[in-house]
Amino acid sequence: MQQDQTIKQVTIVGTGVIGNGWIARFLAQGFEVIATDPAEGAEARMRKAVDNAWPALERLGLADGASIDRLTFEPDLKKAVASADLIQECAPEREELKRRLLSDISHAAKPDAIIASSTSGYKPSLLQETCEHPERVIVAHPFNPVYLLPLVEIVGGKATSADVVKRAKQCYESAGMKALVISHEIDGHIADRLMEAIWREALHLVNDGVATTEEVDASIVYGAGMRWALMGPFLTLHLAGGEQGMRHMLEQFGPALKYPWTKLEAPELTDELTDRVVNGCEHQGKGHSIAELDKRRDDFLIELIELQKKYWPLANLNGEL
Amino acid sequence: MQQDQTIKQVTIVGTGVIGNGWIARFLAQGFEVIATDPAEGAEARMRKAVDNAWPALERLGLADGASIDRLTFEPDLKKAVASADLIQECAPEREELKRRLLSDISHAAKPDAIIASSTSGYKPSLLQETCEHPERVIVAHPFNPVYLLPLVEIVGGKATSADVVKRAKQCYESAGMKALVISHEIDGHIADRLMEAIWREALHLVNDGVATTEEVDASIVYGAGMRWALMGPFLTLHLAGGEQGMRHMLEQFGPALKYPWTKLEAPELTDELTDRVVNGCEHQGKGHSIAELDKRRDDFLIELIELQKKYWPLANLNGEL
Repeated sequence: MQQDQTIKQVTIVGTGVIGNGWIARFLAQGFEVIATDPAEGAEARMRKAVDNAWPALERLGLADGASIDRLTFEPDLKKAVASADLIQECAPEREELKRRLLSDISHAAKPDAIIASSTSGYKPSLLQETCEHPERVIVAHPFNPVYLLPLVEIVGGKATSADVVKRAKQCYESAGMKALVISHEIDGHIADRLMEAIWREALHLVNDGVATTEEVDASIVYGAGMRWALMGPFLTLHLAGGEQGMRHMLEQFGPALKYPWTKLEAPELTDELTDRVVNGCEHQGKGHSIAELDKRRDDFLIELIELQKKYWPLANLNGEL
Repeated sequence: MQQDQTIKQVTIVGTGVIGNGWIARFLAQGFEVIATDPAEGAEARMRKAVDNAWPALERLGLADGASIDRLTFEPDLKKAVASADLIQECAPEREELKRRLLSDISHAAKPDAIIASSTSGYKPSLLQETCEHPERVIVAHPFNPVYLLPLVEIVGGKATSADVVKRAKQCYESAGMKALVISHEIDGHIADRLMEAIWREALHLVNDGVATTEEVDASIVYGAGMRWALMGPFLTLHLAGGEQGMRHMLEQFGPALKYPWTKLEAPELTDELTDRVVNGCEHQGKGHSIAELDKRRDDFLIELIELQKKYWPLANLNGEL
C-alpha cells in the first residue's frame, strides 16, 4: 500500500495498550511517530511494548524506510502535537478526560491536522464540541492488537468535514488498515455494539452459574469464532441456509427472535462477578504471562492474516476493503 | 482419536444442512451411517451434499475404514433407527415436530440407544417428556459446517442419566469433536445465546439504517472475528487489559455496561427488514453460488484448523478440549 502523501508525522497521545499498538503500526508502515504521555515511566513502558511488537511486524513486512529509530517520546503535550499531521488520542475511556484532552490538542495542533479519538464508545459530535477547528475531529476506533488487526472504524461528527473523513480513510489505508467509514453516529459505533451484546450475554451466563469463562470462550472458539475469522454473522447464516440462503434462515429462525434466548440487560457487576470473571481468565492463562499469551496470539494472527488474504476477497466492501 | 467402542452405528434423522453435515462427519470418522428423511428426493440431495463435503474430509484425514460406501438411506423411520447405537435427530426447529419425532424414535429404537437432538434452542427436558426411556435422551447441538467445526454442546434433561451424558461425550469425541457438556439447561444452550445476542444487535443496526449487512460482517471479520478464532470474548479482553489483565478491563469498561450500547430487544422482522438482510447477503456473495462459497469457506477452515492445532492448547477446558 502506498503511503498517503499528506500525512507524514503522527503523534500518539496516551501510551496504554491501544496507544502503543498505534505507535508500532505507524512505525512499521514508515511514518514518523511522536509519543506523549504524562505518566511517570511511560516512555520506558512504551518502548518495551513497541520492541515486543516489532518482530511480528517484521514478519509481516516493514514499509520502505520503516524504523524504530523514527520514534520520539515528548512528554509535553503541546510540543508533541505541534507539528503532527495526524494526532491519535488514546486516553482512558472517560468522557470528561477525553473532551478536555481533545480540546487541548486542538488548540496546540496545526489547524489542518487531523485529530482522531480512539474511543470505543463516544460519539465524535460529543468529543469535538469544545475543540478548535472541530471540522477535523473524528473518531478512528481500532482493535487490539492494533499493530496486527486491520479494522478501524472512522466516524465523523456533526461538525466534521467530508474531506477530513476522506483524508483520514486514505491515511489509515496507507497504514495497512481496513477503514470502515460509518455514516451514522451511534454510541459504540458498529463493532463494539456487537461485541457489547455478546459481552453482556457472556457476563450473564457466568453470573447465573450456567458456564465458566472458559466454557463460554470454548463455545465461541470451536464454533462461531472459526467462522467469524472469515465471514460475519450475516454471510455465515446465509451459507447455513443451504441453497435458499438467508431467506430460508429467516423463515426458520425468525420466530426465535421472540424467544427469551438472551438476557436483555447487563448483570450487576458485583464484586463476586468481578472475581469470578477475573479468576476464570487467569485460570485459562494456565500460568503463562500476558506477554507469552500475546506472543502466541500474534504468531497465530500472522498466519491467519496470510490465510485470510489467500481466501479473500469474499465479503469485501464493494471492492474497497 | 480412537473410535468409541460402544457406538458403531449411527442413524441421522432429517437430511437438511445439519443432518447431512453429521452424516459426512460420522462417515469420515469410520462409523456405519443410516440416513432417513420422509421428503421426496431426500436421498439424492443428501448423497450430493456428502459427496461435496468428502474432499475436505479427505484432506483432513479419514479414519481407518472410513468410506462413503458405509452410508445407507432408509426412508422408513422405524427401520432406520431400529439397530442404531446413536440416533441424531436433525428435524426443522419446531417444538411439536421435534417432540413427536423424538417420541417416535424412542419407541422404535433399542432401549439403550442414545437419542440426541441437534436442536439449537430447546431444552432436553422439554424434548424427552414423551419419550420411552427418557434417560437416554440428550441435546447434542453442532455448528455448521458440522463436518468441519469441532464444537458440540451436550446437554442432559431432568430425566437424563449421567452415564448417558458420559457415553455421549466419548462418542462425539471419538467423532473428532470438542464436546462441551453443559450442566444447566437454558434456552439456546450457551453458544446460541451468545450468537443470538450478536444477531439481534446486528439486525437492529441494519434495521436502523446504521450499517449494511456487509459493513456489519466486515466489522466482525477484520476485528473481533480474527481474535475469536483463537480466543473467546473473555480471554480476548484479558489480553487487552495489559499486564493487569481482565481486572483492569472490568474497571475500565465496567461502567459501559450501564450505557445503552446495545438495543435490548429484537426488531420486528418486517418484510422490509427481511428483504434488506437477504439482499445484503446475496450482494455479498457477488454472484457466487452457495456451493462455491461453501467450498471457499471449507478450504479456509481446513487451513485454520491446522493453524489452531499448532497454537493450541491455550484456552482448553482443563486439558479436556
